[in-house]
Amino acid sequence: MSGSPSIGIGLIGCGTVGGGVAALLRDEADLYAGRLGQPVAIRRVLTRSGKACSDDRGPLFDTSQVTRDFDAFLATPDMPIVVEVAGGIDPVGGYVERAIKAGKHVVTANKSLLAARGPALFALARKHNVSIAFEASCAGGIPIITALQFGLMANRCEGLFAILNGTCNFILTQMTQLGESYTDALKEAQRLGYAEADPTLDVSGADAAQKLAILASLAFGVRVSGDAVACHGIDQLQLEDIRFGAELGYDVKLLAISERWPGEVGLSCNVMPCFISRKELLGQVHGAYNALVVRGHAVGQTMFYGRGAGRFPTASAVVSDILNVASGGYPIAFSHMHLTSDQAPHAQVIALDDLWSRFYIRIGALDIPGVMAKVTTILGHHGISLSAVLQHETNAGQVVPVVITTHEARLGDLIKALGEVEALDVIHGKPVWLRIVDLPDD
Amino acid sequence: MSGSPSIGIGLIGCGTVGGGVAALLRDEADLYAGRLGQPVAIRRVLTRSGKACSDDRGPLFDTSQVTRDFDAFLATPDMPIVVEVAGGIDPVGGYVERAIKAGKHVVTANKSLLAARGPALFALARKHNVSIAFEASCAGGIPIITALQFGLMANRCEGLFAILNGTCNFILTQMTQLGESYTDALKEAQRLGYAEADPTLDVSGADAAQKLAILASLAFGVRVSGDAVACHGIDQLQLEDIRFGAELGYDVKLLAISERWPGEVGLSCNVMPCFISRKELLGQVHGAYNALVVRGHAVGQTMFYGRGAGRFPTASAVVSDILNVASGGYPIAFSHMHLTSDQAPHAQVIALDDLWSRFYIRIGALDIPGVMAKVTTILGHHGISLSAVLQHETNAGQVVPVVITTHEARLGDLIKALGEVEALDVIHGKPVWLRIVDLPDD
Repeated sequence: MSGSPSIGIGLIGCGTVGGGVAALLRDEADLYAGRLGQPVAIRRVLTRSGKACSDDRGPLFDTSQVTRDFDAFLATPDMPIVVEVAGGIDPVGGYVERAIKAGKHVVTANKSLLAARGPALFALARKHNVSIAFEASCAGGIPIITALQFGLMANRCEGLFAILNGTCNFILTQMTQLGESYTDALKEAQRLGYAEADPTLDVSGADAAQKLAILASLAFGVRVSGDAVACHGIDQLQLEDIRFGAELGYDVKLLAISERWPGEVGLSCNVMPCFISRKELLGQVHGAYNALVVRGHAVGQTMFYGRGAGRFPTASAVVSDILNVASGGYPIAFSHMHLTSDQAPHAQVIALDDLWSRFYIRIGALDIPGVMAKVTTILGHHGISLSAVLQHETNAGQVVPVVITTHEARLGDLIKALGEVEALDVIHGKPVWLRIVDLPDD
Repeated sequence: MSGSPSIGIGLIGCGTVGGGVAALLRDEADLYAGRLGQPVAIRRVLTRSGKACSDDRGPLFDTSQVTRDFDAFLATPDMPIVVEVAGGIDPVGGYVERAIKAGKHVVTANKSLLAARGPALFALARKHNVSIAFEASCAGGIPIITALQFGLMANRCEGLFAILNGTCNFILTQMTQLGESYTDALKEAQRLGYAEADPTLDVSGADAAQKLAILASLAFGVRVSGDAVACHGIDQLQLEDIRFGAELGYDVKLLAISERWPGEVGLSCNVMPCFISRKELLGQVHGAYNALVVRGHAVGQTMFYGRGAGRFPTASAVVSDILNVASGGYPIAFSHMHLTSDQAPHAQVIALDDLWSRFYIRIGALDIPGVMAKVTTILGHHGISLSAVLQHETNAGQVVPVVITTHEARLGDLIKALGEVEALDVIHGKPVWLRIVDLPDD
């Protein structure tokens, strides 16, 4: 087998993930050559510095293979696959386009690029008779793209409920299990390398929104762009609500959710901190892990769990893609099947106000007679009915937190009602609301 | 697209799963034609009765398509894919062989056939330049074969820890959560259609052992036959042990486990009821579900969860296979990649006696001074050290259950030691042991 000609790879980027990819290709060369029937070899590496890369086992490739010049990189002979693990939209989007036009298959981990320009790139690849593999763009090492493209292909997807940001899940686990404040939990995440110095992309929910756009496009056979996903982050979340949720049997998770809207042509697509029952497996996913519940009309409920980030989990997805492209199987499937978003209609994403769900509400109410009557009257006017109320004993006349859970209600109506509730002079502070997610029964 | 020529399917068997496959192909014809770029159509159906099949929406195919005659079935023109959902080894194994020799791709849900003759059939398929797709043979609708073949291909598998029999998991959940006896829980499973009238194949662990043989072969790149998997069922399990386990924080699950043996070339392969911590996600899988923890050297710990049986979950896997074969992608991957067991060395499966693990032991001991000293002395002689002891207060002189958990020990030594313990005249009844499974940390 070592006598077979190798399949040439060009690598764009050699940071955390790129280094992991190069290390796997170096350290597991025999394993992969055995599985594929021929070796895979890095021919050229494009980096910003143009410098060689190494890890604790030595150099990741020959210094002579590194270049800063994209033209030189692209002109490398016998290099049918380009692996893009640099990230960002510019200049990388242009590199990917040029690689496709030059007849290269592309393996990419770039969620921002796909969320922004996926359909155009998929169409370009189809035109040039090459494929784009993108397992690493969502949920790190979890083979969810493979599952949606192949393993679950017989299904009409009905819903996708996912923890797609390990940083947020780590922070929320710290807050829930250790009672840490958001600020302290974020510091701990930064200390452990789970969060960036500027954590905005993660904690704002924007990262999860990009991934949801890619996954929902694939799962529902539509086009969803990243900016169509409504997005609330975790940075405003208060410990008090996590504690009240726990009393009610819920854990808080940053959930990316897309559901086919019953009786409508539309799709919901949003990312927000939600309460989910501790009895659900998804509610039991703790720490820096990702998990996705996929509900298909034939298969029912499935769940996929694993590390959503990190050098080797992500490299696992990239290298699996490389091998699948190199075998020729993935390119055939990519060109014959009509799965990617360039051939799909635009999704009709429903406005966030039109989301129907159960909700958790917390208000600060003066503990005097008649307050609850005023609040429930307002909620009732807006068609919101109560499921449960939680209020601990206190001294009369003080401000007490009152927690209310609702039956299914329209979010737009809830927000309007809470605006009116806030205006009552017996109410102190801004009312808080959180979605309560009930996974559909099988 | 409806103008494109259809891809012809021959269906062997039209029972629970076959009926589900035919119903999906009928009801979702447009969806599948859209995804594939051309329609899929059933050309011929082989059943034992030769009678037509229908469901509550009407006939599943034309009566004229049904035959009892395999020769007539195989001679059907324009039928490149044969779907085998009849089950059993004879006569179906012969049908599959003849279909392969006639140049048909085979999609099969037949775990017994693959566990017994997988390598020979894979080799035959390769010789005749066709593929065998078998997603439905293990874990029903969970796309675990797709994950192992493609999505996780960059990994060296280190361990597989799986709940592969939904019937057993349902029974164990009833026993654990409702305190039902094994007999009552089995009756309830039979009433709900989760268990057969003769439940032996399920409750003995034999069904899970066949699936483990298929999965371990694929995951570790070796040949494991079904009869190499050591197997203990759940039918001897006592409520008392489930309750003691719960006190220690464990739930009992019938786990199919295969691990690369540290420092050895061997592989462990066994199915037995095990205690697993309730803090593990796998310990939280309740009811008639399956779940698989796959540990890869690059990806770390992943888990896959869903329905492991039933008409539509299994049909989901079969139809996904049909579409992947029809696209041409799967056959290319099957022929180019060296993943299936026909090209792999035989696994060196370690003897069950050589299994190292932590264990739970329960003995009935006369509550008189010196008993524990005798028991622990025997255990110590066999190199077994204690981790914890649980004994509730009782009246002196009575027989009390004493529960011991051990540190890592060799099962063969444990069994020898328990034989000696049983022979003590202060011990009543047969000592019970159960494996305690600790999933490796990431």
